[in-house]
Amino acid sequence: MDKLRIFVDFAVTQEVLELLQEGTRGHELVFPKTPASSVLAKAGRDPQFATVDIAFGQPEPEAIEEAGQLKWIHVSTSGITRYDNRQFRALVAERKIPVTNSASVYNEACAVHALSFMVAQARRLPLAFQCRTGNGSETWREIRSTSGTLRGETVLILGYGTIGKRLAELLRPFDMKVMAYRRKPRGDEGVLVISEAQLPSALAEADHVVNVLPDSAETRHFFDAARFAMIKPGAIFYNIGRGTTVVQDALLAALRSGRIIAAWLDVTEPEPLPEEHPLRKEPNCFITPHVAGGHKGEDKTLVRHFLKNFERFVRGESLLDRVM
Amino acid sequence: MDKLRIFVDFAVTQEVLELLQEGTRGHELVFPKTPASSVLAKAGRDPQFATVDIAFGQPEPEAIEEAGQLKWIHVSTSGITRYDNRQFRALVAERKIPVTNSASVYNEACAVHALSFMVAQARRLPLAFQCRTGNGSETWREIRSTSGTLRGETVLILGYGTIGKRLAELLRPFDMKVMAYRRKPRGDEGVLVISEAQLPSALAEADHVVNVLPDSAETRHFFDAARFAMIKPGAIFYNIGRGTTVVQDALLAALRSGRIIAAWLDVTEPEPLPEEHPLRKEPNCFITPHVAGGHKGEDKTLVRHFLKNFERFVRGESLLDRVM
Repeated sequence: MDKLRIFVDFAVTQEVLELLQEGTRGHELVFPKTPASSVLAKAGRDPQFATVDIAFGQPEPEAIEEAGQLKWIHVSTSGITRYDNRQFRALVAERKIPVTNSASVYNEACAVHALSFMVAQARRLPLAFQCRTGNGSETWREIRSTSGTLRGETVLILGYGTIGKRLAELLRPFDMKVMAYRRKPRGDEGVLVISEAQLPSALAEADHVVNVLPDSAETRHFFDAARFAMIKPGAIFYNIGRGTTVVQDALLAALRSGRIIAAWLDVTEPEPLPEEHPLRKEPNCFITPHVAGGHKGEDKTLVRHFLKNFERFVRGESLLDRVM
Repeated sequence: MDKLRIFVDFAVTQEVLELLQEGTRGHELVFPKTPASSVLAKAGRDPQFATVDIAFGQPEPEAIEEAGQLKWIHVSTSGITRYDNRQFRALVAERKIPVTNSASVYNEACAVHALSFMVAQARRLPLAFQCRTGNGSETWREIRSTSGTLRGETVLILGYGTIGKRLAELLRPFDMKVMAYRRKPRGDEGVLVISEAQLPSALAEADHVVNVLPDSAETRHFFDAARFAMIKPGAIFYNIGRGTTVVQDALLAALRSGRIIAAWLDVTEPEPLPEEHPLRKEPNCFITPHVAGGHKGEDKTLVRHFLKNFERFVRGESLLDRVM
């Protein structure tokens, strides 16, 4: 195969650069003049992009048209919102440019993050860490008597991709009832998959509603006032998908009315959520700053995943995590 | 069987009282004039105790001698420190009084509590909840790059009874290496059991040291400066056993030196740990107020467990959770 020009639009450490160079030997790495601050951030436009064969990162959707030689796009995130529209899909389909994402890089950490939310809530950790009294005190009794073990409870996972599937695996020893909602069931879910028609009754049954929906035109504001009103009173809501899938005022109202007793969010709209946002003041709303996918050595995992796909690309094999 | 007099030394709700009455019909429940404030607290001495057949709660060890008819003691906790000494063991052995505890009542919750500590640390939840900046900020990078998934890490569980065993089950989907240390291996552990001679190398290997040791003369101050010095630098220490098994000054020193990077404690010495105790000020020390075994409906689980044993006692069958 001819020498390929690979555009990498994010800043890399020396270690990661060496990993990339090693894995793409015989080809050429092209870096923009001003790389993006992180793999999750958009990079600016760069004139070199017009002449590359492969894009690894977060390329501008509009820049694709000018990149006449582009043969493959590997997105550095799990989310592909910027590309998930009819126009872009038509463009890459017409030019036969496969689009892959980095879902496998973040799945495991995202699933563990979701589990950490569920068990921290079950054990009432935020309340327990603040408690300064002991045996027999009122707070102590409250913590003990409202703590749980998840056993026998029901969880509904919305957006049942690799994260949801891994979460279900992690939950297996807890003896919970696991239900999954996904737009296109494939039959290999291994748990009870519910249809859109069954969604209201599933929301009315679940003790734990775990939102892992990606951001797209169809999922935007998926959790609005009407859907929150379907949730079982006393349930707990988790969001480790995208902030845009939730109407935050509706979430706030659901928390204030006690419809849901706690919300655990890794994603919000916008990010970071301003300090003065009312969700910040809700005592049962716990927010982490979009770190669910993060893990030690994340940049290396990301590059290794790309390199695995790069080898497959060079050999003409099917690509991993292909989304278009 | 003759009518049995059952001494219950803790305060019960109406609902729990009815459960007890229902399950012991035909026998007599005896309550002290001043019941203990909780099932974990010591009750005072009561003259009626001298005439009962069964003790359910936390009877005074010294009162046993005077209770000439006593035939069975069912302790309302998992811990049996007050009774775990040569003199008491000799007394109940001589009088053939079986002693059972409530381990099965608290196991599940304790194991989930330990897991909640492990995943909350892995996901850096305490730091993440305080973060007010997002994508690309220094704190955000720190959280993401120091978060983990537990996968491939090693955990050493000290005190491998039913709690430890359940924790190992909950950890199975994480693909960790699980090692267990127990005084008397039984061969049914299902994980790598290490001997006392192997303890130093196990402590040097484990990324997570989970202390579930009960309190006894042998385990008191088990984790002293010498043992903390054996722990792998950068490991995390958890205590959901008893506070007395740890020399807290040694723990503090291990945290301050960075030998262990975080401590998660459900038990301390004393409880509650005073607000001015230096461990309260350690940024990587997280303390819950002895709530690991707590769960919704705990008092009912406790009484149901007793009643299950009561039925067996009446039928002359072997008792559950027998400890002496």
